[in-house]
Amino acid sequence: MVNAGKPLTGNEVALHNTRESCWIIVHDNVYDVTDFLDDHPGGSKIILKYAGKDATKEYDPIHPPDAITTNLKPEKHLGPVDLETVEKVEEVITNEERTRQARLAARPLLSEILNLHDFEAIARVVMPEKAWAYYSSAADDEITNRENHAAFHRVWFRPRILRDVTAIDWSTTILGHKSSMPLYITATALGKLGHPDGELNLTRAAAKHGVIQMVPTLASCSFDEIIDAAAPGQVQFFQLYVNKDREITKRIVQHAEKRGIKGLFITVDAPQLGRREKDMRQKFEAEDPSEVKQAGQGGVDRSQGAARAISSFIDPGLNWSDMQFFKSITKMPLILKGVQCWEDALEAYDTGLAGVVLSNHGGRQLDFARSGIEVLVEVVANLKEKRGLNFPNEKFQLFIDGGVRRATDIIKAVALGATAVGVGRPFLYAFSSYGQEGVEKALRILHDEFEMTMRLLGARNIKEIVPGMVDASNIHLHTVSVPSDNLYESNYERLQGARIRAIKGKL
Amino acid sequence: MVNAGKPLTGNEVALHNTRESCWIIVHDNVYDVTDFLDDHPGGSKIILKYAGKDATKEYDPIHPPDAITTNLKPEKHLGPVDLETVEKVEEVITNEERTRQARLAARPLLSEILNLHDFEAIARVVMPEKAWAYYSSAADDEITNRENHAAFHRVWFRPRILRDVTAIDWSTTILGHKSSMPLYITATALGKLGHPDGELNLTRAAAKHGVIQMVPTLASCSFDEIIDAAAPGQVQFFQLYVNKDREITKRIVQHAEKRGIKGLFITVDAPQLGRREKDMRQKFEAEDPSEVKQAGQGGVDRSQGAARAISSFIDPGLNWSDMQFFKSITKMPLILKGVQCWEDALEAYDTGLAGVVLSNHGGRQLDFARSGIEVLVEVVANLKEKRGLNFPNEKFQLFIDGGVRRATDIIKAVALGATAVGVGRPFLYAFSSYGQEGVEKALRILHDEFEMTMRLLGARNIKEIVPGMVDASNIHLHTVSVPSDNLYESNYERLQGARIRAIKGKL
Amino acid sequence: MVNAGKPLTGNEVALHNTRESCWIIVHDNVYDVTDFLDDHPGGSKIILKYAGKDATKEYDPIHPPDAITTNLKPEKHLGPVDLETVEKVEEVITNEERTRQARLAARPLLSEILNLHDFEAIARVVMPEKAWAYYSSAADDEITNRENHAAFHRVWFRPRILRDVTAIDWSTTILGHKSSMPLYITATALGKLGHPDGELNLTRAAAKHGVIQMVPTLASCSFDEIIDAAAPGQVQFFQLYVNKDREITKRIVQHAEKRGIKGLFITVDAPQLGRREKDMRQKFEAEDPSEVKQAGQGGVDRSQGAARAISSFIDPGLNWSDMQFFKSITKMPLILKGVQCWEDALEAYDTGLAGVVLSNHGGRQLDFARSGIEVLVEVVANLKEKRGLNFPNEKFQLFIDGGVRRATDIIKAVALGATAVGVGRPFLYAFSSYGQEGVEKALRILHDEFEMTMRLLGARNIKEIVPGMVDASNIHLHTVSVPSDNLYESNYERLQGARIRAIKGKL
Amino acid sequence: MVNAGKPLTGNEVALHNTRESCWIIVHDNVYDVTDFLDDHPGGSKIILKYAGKDATKEYDPIHPPDAITTNLKPEKHLGPVDLETVEKVEEVITNEERTRQARLAARPLLSEILNLHDFEAIARVVMPEKAWAYYSSAADDEITNRENHAAFHRVWFRPRILRDVTAIDWSTTILGHKSSMPLYITATALGKLGHPDGELNLTRAAAKHGVIQMVPTLASCSFDEIIDAAAPGQVQFFQLYVNKDREITKRIVQHAEKRGIKGLFITVDAPQLGRREKDMRQKFEAEDPSEVKQAGQGGVDRSQGAARAISSFIDPGLNWSDMQFFKSITKMPLILKGVQCWEDALEAYDTGLAGVVLSNHGGRQLDFARSGIEVLVEVVANLKEKRGLNFPNEKFQLFIDGGVRRATDIIKAVALGATAVGVGRPFLYAFSSYGQEGVEKALRILHDEFEMTMRLLGARNIKEIVPGMVDASNIHLHTVSVPSDNLYESNYERLQGARIRAIKGKL
Repeated sequence: MVNAGKPLTGNEVALHNTRESCWIIVHDNVYDVTDFLDDHPGGSKIILKYAGKDATKEYDPIHPPDAITTNLKPEKHLGPVDLETVEKVEEVITNEERTRQARLAARPLLSEILNLHDFEAIARVVMPEKAWAYYSSAADDEITNRENHAAFHRVWFRPRILRDVTAIDWSTTILGHKSSMPLYITATALGKLGHPDGELNLTRAAAKHGVIQMVPTLASCSFDEIIDAAAPGQVQFFQLYVNKDREITKRIVQHAEKRGIKGLFITVDAPQLGRREKDMRQKFEAEDPSEVKQAGQGGVDRSQGAARAISSFIDPGLNWSDMQFFKSITKMPLILKGVQCWEDALEAYDTGLAGVVLSNHGGRQLDFARSGIEVLVEVVANLKEKRGLNFPNEKFQLFIDGGVRRATDIIKAVALGATAVGVGRPFLYAFSSYGQEGVEKALRILHDEFEMTMRLLGARNIKEIVPGMVDASNIHLHTVSVPSDNLYESNYERLQGARIRAIKGKL
Repeated sequence: MVNAGKPLTGNEVALHNTRESCWIIVHDNVYDVTDFLDDHPGGSKIILKYAGKDATKEYDPIHPPDAITTNLKPEKHLGPVDLETVEKVEEVITNEERTRQARLAARPLLSEILNLHDFEAIARVVMPEKAWAYYSSAADDEITNRENHAAFHRVWFRPRILRDVTAIDWSTTILGHKSSMPLYITATALGKLGHPDGELNLTRAAAKHGVIQMVPTLASCSFDEIIDAAAPGQVQFFQLYVNKDREITKRIVQHAEKRGIKGLFITVDAPQLGRREKDMRQKFEAEDPSEVKQAGQGGVDRSQGAARAISSFIDPGLNWSDMQFFKSITKMPLILKGVQCWEDALEAYDTGLAGVVLSNHGGRQLDFARSGIEVLVEVVANLKEKRGLNFPNEKFQLFIDGGVRRATDIIKAVALGATAVGVGRPFLYAFSSYGQEGVEKALRILHDEFEMTMRLLGARNIKEIVPGMVDASNIHLHTVSVPSDNLYESNYERLQGARIRAIKGKL
Repeated sequence: MVNAGKPLTGNEVALHNTRESCWIIVHDNVYDVTDFLDDHPGGSKIILKYAGKDATKEYDPIHPPDAITTNLKPEKHLGPVDLETVEKVEEVITNEERTRQARLAARPLLSEILNLHDFEAIARVVMPEKAWAYYSSAADDEITNRENHAAFHRVWFRPRILRDVTAIDWSTTILGHKSSMPLYITATALGKLGHPDGELNLTRAAAKHGVIQMVPTLASCSFDEIIDAAAPGQVQFFQLYVNKDREITKRIVQHAEKRGIKGLFITVDAPQLGRREKDMRQKFEAEDPSEVKQAGQGGVDRSQGAARAISSFIDPGLNWSDMQFFKSITKMPLILKGVQCWEDALEAYDTGLAGVVLSNHGGRQLDFARSGIEVLVEVVANLKEKRGLNFPNEKFQLFIDGGVRRATDIIKAVALGATAVGVGRPFLYAFSSYGQEGVEKALRILHDEFEMTMRLLGARNIKEIVPGMVDASNIHLHTVSVPSDNLYESNYERLQGARIRAIKGKL
Repeated sequence: MVNAGKPLTGNEVALHNTRESCWIIVHDNVYDVTDFLDDHPGGSKIILKYAGKDATKEYDPIHPPDAITTNLKPEKHLGPVDLETVEKVEEVITNEERTRQARLAARPLLSEILNLHDFEAIARVVMPEKAWAYYSSAADDEITNRENHAAFHRVWFRPRILRDVTAIDWSTTILGHKSSMPLYITATALGKLGHPDGELNLTRAAAKHGVIQMVPTLASCSFDEIIDAAAPGQVQFFQLYVNKDREITKRIVQHAEKRGIKGLFITVDAPQLGRREKDMRQKFEAEDPSEVKQAGQGGVDRSQGAARAISSFIDPGLNWSDMQFFKSITKMPLILKGVQCWEDALEAYDTGLAGVVLSNHGGRQLDFARSGIEVLVEVVANLKEKRGLNFPNEKFQLFIDGGVRRATDIIKAVALGATAVGVGRPFLYAFSSYGQEGVEKALRILHDEFEMTMRLLGARNIKEIVPGMVDASNIHLHTVSVPSDNLYESNYERLQGARIRAIKGKL
């Protein structure tokens, strides 16, 4: 620390406003980031913009609170600043931002939102580009990302008729806790990118509609903020990225348990965060051209996007033997999030865990990983064959996530043996476009869809949603059409139907 | 009633022309709809337009005759009005409507209509948007709606040759009644939306061409109007939505039988009417913006579309035990409309019913329900295996509906065991664009197609259309392509063929 | 006859130039077509244009020579005219025709034509619209038409390596006659629509390149013209539509045999000619609007297109028992053209015929008939199983046609057991764009492709093209994708790759 | 020789600058190409442009060094020229070329290139058209070319979790030689078309990144140049087109061995080079219109493209018995490049070869040949069944090539039994857009992708990539959709989602 004991002044900080010496203020503390400029996953431009100034407003939505202290060596933590002496950063609103604000104001009424797709359609045009890129992007060619949704389309219904479906009850229990629907709000990072209230939008809406929120390790809001926002008795789960330092992990887990978390979902599909090229590509826009010139063609590769910026602490060494460690530090039920074949689900069962989430991380990790709904079919078949289990199963619960847009998607999973289904992006899009009200509307839409679908399916409660109600015989079919014969196609003259006379000439 | 015994005057009614007190006249009677404004599925705007006035012309095409008396509490029925004292509502023709009328005038000659697709192409541009939205819309993402048509494309012909096909007879019997083709006009609601004569267009054309019409519960014309329009000896079936009040149902059914109805088709796939979002979305256009402001973001959800507006009486409690009730009140053959798996078809057979319609309600109820033609294959196989039945079968008749556009579609179903096939929307589009003449032309086209197809197939009559004439081995294949590799696709340069020299540069 | 013994004069004929009395001259003879106007499949307009005049030039390319005498009652044949007295019809060249001529002049050099697709691309823009509509159109939704080509894409090669492929011989024998390739020019109607020399283009090119032409019943050139155009020793087959009057058929067949025809291909898939709506739709353009008004909405249906215009004599009563008749009148080998399932192929074999063409008439008859290549697979399997036959087989030869564009298509069929493959439209397009030279170029291209493909496949001669060289395991797969989820698709933002900086902003 | 012993002068040569007498200078020697003009596969125009002048600069990138001496009879080799006396050809830069140079200058920074697709996107717009046409083109309809990539999309991952994946090692050995990745740079022709340094870009980048380059017979750089450019100890393989003259082949092979080549890959899928129509079509642009007129419609066919220009020496007579010859002349391991079915892989094994490349020559030879990854599955299954082999196998190594764009593609092949995978075009595109740096960046990207993918897959080294990690059950599925029902599709109104109010009217 340069000035131990005594806060720095704004003037002192302001002197360090160049590439050669670059200090910034975050949350009333000063940091020397000169040597970090080239390593900043978000590029140097955005830092240099705040050189010698307070960067907190820019910093907050994209970084977990302790990112800067974790990434900078202690000697670069220069100590507190006297905020009174710091000049306020004038916020310049770009034209792009102004246009975005105009679009935001022009969003349709919530009553015109008919389904979860609609939130995405609105969010895509009202969110900041950076936020959209981070939320929507997925690994490599985004094949798995879209397959997650597409796979549901290979499962079809076999509805039953002439059952008295006057009363429909779509509530269930998840890990022993009541849920108004067989779904939970799954963990997603950086909520403040989409809305200033970040994850709290989810917490509050979940309370109102009786669903369970899974709190993410990489939330923009701090863990305690999110827990504090919960209603009395509101059930929350916690998603854990395991730190290389197990002591940190132990502290986090035990704190979570103390704060009342009811289930620990350990992420196992992300020993390294995936390449999300849409996100990376968006970042080039944010580069400082002069910087770029300096670095030249062979310069430092800064194209890692938001994902890599926040994940360096995750332990790629995590393995099955760590499960004993977790059992030793907590009584919370342990669930693996990111299981992708029956062999590992079996291992989880044999290890005495409480369940698994069959997930590929929303298509954000390994491209060409299969969808949760497809893996579910093989897991159910093999655990029945090898351990005699039937699903849904109280003792060992199966979850899936990824690609959900309709209650029908969830009901297909339940029919095939899932206890519940995680839904992520649709709620992000809901609060990014309408805040907490958006999430509530999304949940109301799902309630409506559950009631309707179960009534039409002839299932009066979750238990009555049985395997015989779906045909999943095509689930393993991954077809790719023979490449098109473009010469033939361009020669073929498509049939035209009858047309109105007057406009014939114009078509 | 405000004024018992004495009719109200137009002036009295006209005073109640505000949101605070809103009366309207329908069919010479006055109703106080003030409290109903927010509940009106069609939105408040359209009612307020007629506040204090005669709304009959607007009311008629979209509501069943008794909708208003059923939905309003008796104390809101204010009694008759003296029509002489009521000011005529001046009809204002909007620009949109004027343009539509111009398109209607520019429709091609009927002789230029070559197939059933053509009616749809014309109807789409000449119908009022509201009507098109109601007729064409289907549930959720309209996957099942389109699958209904697509599924026929997975069934291919195995034609036989060198049979003397000079004389072709495509007539058959349905429930013992002669039909000139193995098809019937299935029940569809709100015929007047598309044409002022509504369902009567169907009745009259059916008479001329020897086909059977299934009269819908939710017709725009009253049941008796439709029956009265029938020719002597003309066979009609009746489609029944079962009312929560079984006495009403009993009255309706026995009246139908008395009027000569030859078969009772009980709808079992609609305990609740499906969400048809195209229809709902269209409705926002009809909202009163000031109303919308008042209700605000969290206001009443008025987005239910025409479908919900007309269906609240339908009993979701209907179940197998009700079948005894129906047997007790009528001698008409009972057929379940909306069976979607072999288990329920078997149950219907064991219950002693006369048949089932394998249908998903034109894709308007549960999205991802399978097509009738696909379900037919499993029903025929299972009823043969479990009860030794062969199809087509006089004792237990199988019907399908949904997605039909060509006689080839119908012939595929007949080859696979159906007695006949229901056709709905194509006839709606036919009369919406050309009235009764359109329906007649549609039937003539089908006659032509039957003759042609059977001749080319080597089947001289309906009995000669046998399973060996089709290959349905792909019927259960629900493929979804692996999502496209957009980077690869955008890099690939499509082959171009030879081109005319002169225009080479311009292409 | 009005004027027996003495020719009519041009002046006499010219008086009958109205709808009320309409005479025309065809090939020096006068016909009263007044009563025929409404029945003319080509519409009344085109006839009225020549009322009182010589219509020969218009008549010739579209009608078989005896069409008018066959269709008009004898009393309407008014006898010969003195041509000297007839005013020449001035040919008015329309703008449309002038533009077409310009396009024709701008066609690329033949040396730039690389494959059979190219002829189609050129023909499409240089042919008269009517001709293109007739040649290119197919039945109903043209599904089978395109499936014919698509089915070849489900068969893939298993090439063999390290064989000495220096010398390649792709010649073969068809019905015992030498052919330079395992293909023949199949029968197609109305050759003069595309080129003034009509079928003679094919005859002459076939002679030069050692391939066999199948002469069609419905040629624009007369049978004898085509035979006369053949080179000494040139082999020709004959395609027969069987006339309702067997005496006529007998005369035709025996004449053909006498003229040296080496094989009789009896068409069995066309008891009635199919609906080709592209052709029919094109015809409306040719209608006389005043006529249309007169006929009104319910008027005569004139929308039959060229196909129906020429086919009324075909006997739908033709059946297996007729085969004895054919055996009794000719020694030519008898082949059925249009067999579409193994059952009928087996029957043909058991009846002692020389072979079958597995064909659906180029997709012009029954839509959803399967492709020849698909039917071939089941025929070969069943005739092996039930009669112990191996294919290719000298005693009972299998042919297919439809959808061929590359020698690879033909080689796939040969590998699967076909003796040879019929090619039709590509040659029509070749002469429609380049006359006889076009057909020769098409044959040269095919020669090149045969040499190349066989060399790369490791087959030195036709016998070495064996089943193990293809994988046809997907041939019976008729997939139709699950309908697309348009809301999801429209929300998904496609990945974009790297782009040139300068034009970034514009994309 | 015209002037034995004494060099010609520039003036002497300059006199022969017409079609009638055309001399050109290449590498200080004069050639009389008058009679060769019509036979030049690249067309006469380009030669006539250099008539009487020095054509070396144009000649070099597209011809192997000895092309002119091989193709011209010895008497047309007129001997050396005194270069001092030759007028320099002024290079005229066309507008097209100027624009291309501008695009080249505007290419994005290498740091913005995220994947191998990106190089192709840039190369497509910055390469000379002729070069793009040659590199990108493939046989016939380019079905196999695209299938090569598509087939990888039918193989999906089954990742394993909870393994300690801190350290990942993706190095391996190929034919006993260390490789930093399980890939090699496969042989591709005419490297100078894309970049002046041609194949040397690959040699140098390969050295830096520890991968093996396969040197092509048809390199633009001479063999010795490429070997000389290698770093000490750098491993190189050699791809051999076998010459009709075995002595030449022997000389080439023994020279290669002497220069240190570690493996001989004998091309067996190209007894004749395939038709690449995109390349051929591009050539028409390069024609001299006056020439074209002279040759006329029936003139010489010059449309063979670059591929045919360079391949006439290849021996189509090569066969299995030649393998003894190769064994007799070299100790290098012998690998067949272009095996396409298990039968030939088995034969190669039984013949005692060191391995096979399952390849279809990048789709440039036989269209509808299957992809390497598909053939791999049948080869592994059959060699296990028939010879008890397991793969990967040191004694008999399997390689595939074609269609690779991601490390995931390669890892799928390794999981299925391949030792390594050849990558060709992506590196061509890398150096065509960025020279050697581009190739290095491409290799760095692949390194990154290997690390990431193996970590996410749970494989710490190449041996841990096992068959159970992929699902290849759909690999043999070649689906072609049933042709679309265009009338139905055009009538269907696609669902539209929620939209921003302000821009509603404009969408």
